[in-house]
Amino acid sequence: MTGTLWGLGVGPGDPELVTVKALRILRAAPVVAFLAPEEGRSFARGIVASELAPAKIEIAIRVPMERARHPAQSVYDEAAREIAGHLAAGRDVALLCQGDPFFYGSFIQIFERLGASHPTRIVPGITSLTACAAAARLPLVSRETTLTALPATLPEAALMRRLKQAEAAAVLKLGRNFAKARRVLERLHRAEGAIYVEHASLGSERVLALAEVDPAEVPYFAMILVPAAEEKRR
Amino acid sequence: MTGTLWGLGVGPGDPELVTVKALRILRAAPVVAFLAPEEGRSFARGIVASELAPAKIEIAIRVPMERARHPAQSVYDEAAREIAGHLAAGRDVALLCQGDPFFYGSFIQIFERLGASHPTRIVPGITSLTACAAAARLPLVSRETTLTALPATLPEAALMRRLKQAEAAAVLKLGRNFAKARRVLERLHRAEGAIYVEHASLGSERVLALAEVDPAEVPYFAMILVPAAEEKRR
Repeated sequence: MTGTLWGLGVGPGDPELVTVKALRILRAAPVVAFLAPEEGRSFARGIVASELAPAKIEIAIRVPMERARHPAQSVYDEAAREIAGHLAAGRDVALLCQGDPFFYGSFIQIFERLGASHPTRIVPGITSLTACAAAARLPLVSRETTLTALPATLPEAALMRRLKQAEAAAVLKLGRNFAKARRVLERLHRAEGAIYVEHASLGSERVLALAEVDPAEVPYFAMILVPAAEEKRR
Repeated sequence: MTGTLWGLGVGPGDPELVTVKALRILRAAPVVAFLAPEEGRSFARGIVASELAPAKIEIAIRVPMERARHPAQSVYDEAAREIAGHLAAGRDVALLCQGDPFFYGSFIQIFERLGASHPTRIVPGITSLTACAAAARLPLVSRETTLTALPATLPEAALMRRLKQAEAAAVLKLGRNFAKARRVLERLHRAEGAIYVEHASLGSERVLALAEVDPAEVPYFAMILVPAAEEKRR
């Protein structure tokens, strides 16, 4: 019997924003895997740390997350081989995913390597998108409005073009790209109604107007929510 | 002491896709409110029905959901008044929201009426967006790709324009608008890689290629996921 690979969404950070299903799968899985920085703790593992019995096998997938845009593929290759070994031995593997596995998740890297050849199931998680909207008390999108999510890592011209076309928008992956994103929103006259959120759902959560943000202090896991023009008018 | 209005995301339908936090708030709230059709059962209430003790006060907000695009505002006015009465009496009110309260949620109607004048907190929920991607085993969006969510209720020309600009996309609120959405995707040569999902996370869940779908049988709560062109190439 081959084991199943589970892509487990564990939400934005608050341990209470994990679903009942993710907890059930996690408790039953003999092996857990998670992304982690080259040195230091895994954010995803930290969310469910109290659920991890000592007997579980743990696989830390250590990738250079913030510095390289496209972390070394060999790290994912090696992790996929290790996970495949457990699956072949009949052990289920729960891969913990901050937020949702398929919404800008590094799980996609593993899924691309194992999804076609191994039993794989996905448990959706609370995304940073809705967690930030909840924190900001800002309705994301309603009625016939469209919502566009886009990463601030895009080149400035692409960011400008995409945001110009967008109604409601969410700009993700800020970090050192914050100043660029704010500049683009100012040029489009959409900075005023926009809201900055960092560490949504955690004790360190902050919600600020764009003008209040110090670009030097913006973490990677921060977001700008841009209301649709029609929302602003109301 | 004024009560707090909670916008509680209860996810896409599977009772296990509710968060630990939503369950805690729900169990503690003396009053629950929920959207319901003019006649018949509330989908959101059904998700957490096993958690509803008989002693709870229940408010059914009965709106003509599928027939009218903009359901009578007076229904929301009346519901807001009833909820405000409980809040003034010091009772917390948990408003159950299918999916997420701020992602195309009817909760926004109540939030617009009470959010500025009453203590209001939001608990994000699993959206239909990530639940459909999990069901379809289709990575929604990764790396530097943008994702656009848009409702199929838009006029055909607007749908065409928005989808032409979009990379990865999700077309929501299908129902009788399915044929229009499929026609637009065919004209844009993006129908082939797209996936149709209905009743994601429920026992009645179905995942189909667009060509297999009978437009006469498409429910309102169904979605088309359109991978980005770069995803298709892989």
